[in-house]
Amino acid sequence: MDPSTIPAPGSSERTRVRRISEKAVEDRGVVEAILDAGLVAHVGIVEESGQPYVVPVAYAREGDRLLFHGSTGSRLFRRLAEGAPTCVTVTLLDGLVLARSAFESSMNYRGVMALGTCTVLDGDERDDALRLISDHLLPGRWGDIRPPSRKEIAATLVLALPLDEVSAKVSDKMPEDDPQDVDRPVWGGVVPLRESFGEPVADERGSAYPVPAYLGSWTR
Amino acid sequence: MDPSTIPAPGSSERTRVRRISEKAVEDRGVVEAILDAGLVAHVGIVEESGQPYVVPVAYAREGDRLLFHGSTGSRLFRRLAEGAPTCVTVTLLDGLVLARSAFESSMNYRGVMALGTCTVLDGDERDDALRLISDHLLPGRWGDIRPPSRKEIAATLVLALPLDEVSAKVSDKMPEDDPQDVDRPVWGGVVPLRESFGEPVADERGSAYPVPAYLGSWTR
Repeated sequence: MDPSTIPAPGSSERTRVRRISEKAVEDRGVVEAILDAGLVAHVGIVEESGQPYVVPVAYAREGDRLLFHGSTGSRLFRRLAEGAPTCVTVTLLDGLVLARSAFESSMNYRGVMALGTCTVLDGDERDDALRLISDHLLPGRWGDIRPPSRKEIAATLVLALPLDEVSAKVSDKMPEDDPQDVDRPVWGGVVPLRESFGEPVADERGSAYPVPAYLGSWTR
Repeated sequence: MDPSTIPAPGSSERTRVRRISEKAVEDRGVVEAILDAGLVAHVGIVEESGQPYVVPVAYAREGDRLLFHGSTGSRLFRRLAEGAPTCVTVTLLDGLVLARSAFESSMNYRGVMALGTCTVLDGDERDDALRLISDHLLPGRWGDIRPPSRKEIAATLVLALPLDEVSAKVSDKMPEDDPQDVDRPVWGGVVPLRESFGEPVADERGSAYPVPAYLGSWTR
């Protein structure tokens, strides 16, 4: 029951895993694979008062930075644009670990936490970022849809967070019950959690067109 | 593409939705249903320096408060125990909204954001909270497993966040393309996202017992 222990990881003192070091992963490839597999990130934003907010966003990874966007009308996103420190966390839940003791019961997960300060993208960089965020959610879609107009782009705040101070934690294990608990007469093991696309539901406005091939049968 | 607009909601000035009011839901039943359906919450914690952290946790709702736990060894959870303001966000992704324009492309989701200050639970309240968090993840499991020992409980920090300042946003819609975009020759609609249990994998330690009935075939 300890996804509560995802905190931390490590490329800097303040992100170093302090408690359950066996779960920390410093491999850059693992960090990138987790970011590339997620659909939503949770962004931490602190108001002047010290009150934090945690906001879900669509995002994409472009090399060594994370891209996401919000409305120019959002006071929270304006805080980020002004250089407020942030934390962006991506969590993939992979399964329930059903141990024979409450204490060892937990979840398998992969998580990335990135700390830093965002920069506001403009011009071609901004336009590219919008395409990359679309490509991240559904590769192939961008070529089919009307790109954003100047007016639409002007209403969109596009931010980039450098992946300098970043780390991952991965828990992929069977229950770690103490020997005296293992013989308890109850099933122990892991129940995987799966995410997948359901049956597409067509918009009745407009003419009927076939479901695009790039929808495929995504599953994780 | 605007789960970035989940911010806010509400029962107080600082959580009131400022931008896309049609998505705000003030119905207490909706707030509770979202919290009861989620498996993970993201908790915002701010260090003395002003640096935010966003940490995934298992949780449960008990009436008008949210329960979650961490390790007593975690400096971030100790911040919460000391009364640092927090934000707990639960996000359920329900589908991709495939519009014919980039700007109207988005996600269907349900989200809750709760602001406040945690209290540390102790004694029977703490013991009950641990059971409720287990029950939230998998009802029925608690009766089968060894309850936590005094020593295990002593290593666990159990926190309760009152659901006073809380709000929900729900987006459950077809693409809202402008009329001139609807006739673009491409499929438009919604692709639902589903979460479900995969095939349970038994721990090879210990004897073989049947998969418990309460595992059922959870799906969302």
